Amino acid sequence: MTILLNSEEIKKCVKLNEQLIPIIEDAFKNLALGKTTMPPILRLDIEQYHGESDVKAAYIDGLDSYAIKIASGFFNNPKLGLPSSNGLMILLDSETGVLKSVLLDKGYLTDVRTAIAGAIAAKYLSNPQSTKAGIIGAGIQAKLQLQALSLVRDIETAFIWARDQEKINKFINELKNLNINIHSCTSVEEVVKQSEILVTTTPSKSPLIKNEWLKKGLHITAMGSDAESKNELDPLIIKECDLYIPDSLSQTKILGELHHAIEKNLISSNEKYYELGNIILDPSLGRKNKEDITVCDLTGTGVQDTAIARQTYEIAMNLKLGTKIE
Amino acid sequence: MTILLNSEEIKKCVKLNEQLIPIIEDAFKNLALGKTTMPPILRLDIEQYHGESDVKAAYIDGLDSYAIKIASGFFNNPKLGLPSSNGLMILLDSETGVLKSVLLDKGYLTDVRTAIAGAIAAKYLSNPQSTKAGIIGAGIQAKLQLQALSLVRDIETAFIWARDQEKINKFINELKNLNINIHSCTSVEEVVKQSEILVTTTPSKSPLIKNEWLKKGLHITAMGSDAESKNELDPLIIKECDLYIPDSLSQTKILGELHHAIEKNLISSNEKYYELGNIILDPSLGRKNKEDITVCDLTGTGVQDTAIARQTYEIAMNLKLGTKIE
Repeated sequence: MTILLNSEEIKKCVKLNEQLIPIIEDAFKNLALGKTTMPPILRLDIEQYHGESDVKAAYIDGLDSYAIKIASGFFNNPKLGLPSSNGLMILLDSETGVLKSVLLDKGYLTDVRTAIAGAIAAKYLSNPQSTKAGIIGAGIQAKLQLQALSLVRDIETAFIWARDQEKINKFINELKNLNINIHSCTSVEEVVKQSEILVTTTPSKSPLIKNEWLKKGLHITAMGSDAESKNELDPLIIKECDLYIPDSLSQTKILGELHHAIEKNLISSNEKYYELGNIILDPSLGRKNKEDITVCDLTGTGVQDTAIARQTYEIAMNLKLGTKIE
Repeated sequence: MTILLNSEEIKKCVKLNEQLIPIIEDAFKNLALGKTTMPPILRLDIEQYHGESDVKAAYIDGLDSYAIKIASGFFNNPKLGLPSSNGLMILLDSETGVLKSVLLDKGYLTDVRTAIAGAIAAKYLSNPQSTKAGIIGAGIQAKLQLQALSLVRDIETAFIWARDQEKINKFINELKNLNINIHSCTSVEEVVKQSEILVTTTPSKSPLIKNEWLKKGLHITAMGSDAESKNELDPLIIKECDLYIPDSLSQTKILGELHHAIEKNLISSNEKYYELGNIILDPSLGRKNKEDITVCDLTGTGVQDTAIARQTYEIAMNLKLGTKIE
């Protein structure tokens, strides 16, 4: 039996909240332990329309289902009145390959599992007493990342910078109910210098954050870079920070901030780093003291997709949601 | 609007017949001309259950949609009373990435486009007067390949070998209406020596066909190998044949029969070959004379998937088939 879940049904099953944190943590733990099969991302570029489809997939040992996810980004869409992101997930039976579910989430589950990864990064790497967040960008992830941060830290003040003032105003308006004082800043530097936790959420192709702006104790989560050409942090930051943690080292070497530091010969391509899952398994591997500058490099992993697709399907079955299509 | 097509609806739209030949030929032509974007295959192995999911995707320049295909093979399934193959295709809008259709074909469209590729290979590479076909294997592709051959050649006699006599009997029984004299052979050699066109359709991991068995004028289509470990032809055949034609050179170097010839140092990994699409564009690049031994190495390409998914969708829209799901 194959169940189709549409985006309204999916939103009833899964929301950005604390319950998802241990579920995504488990995915990262399995990844770090090597208890997963996660092939390289398939990426199809449609240059003519400034579009791309990425396919991610991962099997987590012993689980009875696995997800394959198609996520598309078409960057002319806003001009056409359409969201730039889109996508769906396919859930398959691990023993037989039989299709269990088609999740027409339009990218919602990707948005949520990405925000939860940001919460996990801050939970394990930022100073616990951090109250000041900086957000670079004002898109969907900018909003979700601030919401996610407030699941794990008592954020009182947020500083935001984005190219588009209108989007900033919308951001501030939409996040009113978070009870955070949100300040619009006129420069990236202004945000960085006032933040204890900084989250970069842009598709920038050249570094926005300079190394010399960073003050002691800052934690940075860079989640914008998920392609070779994208780059939010000065590569020197990766070299000079006290702790660099990738979500998946094999991916950040190719797609993440690390990739640019390797390309600039600041870091050897053979350099070893603990992954986020290692820190979750043993938090003593994380931040050593209050003064450390820590960086988490998130490229988005198939194991997160498998974890959130499974969770959505399980809740949908309990709530008897979805339509039988086979 | 997104349309869901189930396997019955899909079978109403697309059948193994002559009409599909120019459609799949166009796909190969575009591939050979470089007018496509076709990333490497994503392959997820689930070793615990002897299963795998492959994802193929391709955009053909200028077309208004492209497909991403998930195809799974779970080789313990027959013991569970389930088919080993399964799959679905996703059709997306080339300009916006919006989901146009989910095609729940369970692998049917892959079976058909693969058989049509076999027909195309024989059409351009075998001697036109060939009447004797040899088929190695007795699974779904064995049947479809013989049917496909009879679309392009006047096949009067077929010789078949497979490990399982029961499957051979079923094969002969199911293909009665083709009006071909089908002879069950007790060895691969017996098939090879009597054939003018030979199609190998097995998942064999060691060569079944020996070079010394090949007689002048034979055309071979090897379509079983679609993974590194699979190998149906003695690698010497690739080196010694008069004409070797891959569906996609970048794929056969990694997954096809060519891969084994390269690994055995019989052929340099830099060797250049025309692809099937080049031969379709200019048939004079194909067989030079009656005596030539020709080999076509089919690994299965994303452009075939895009072509057949688009064709299915177009016919379904004309027939008003499918269910609106978004």
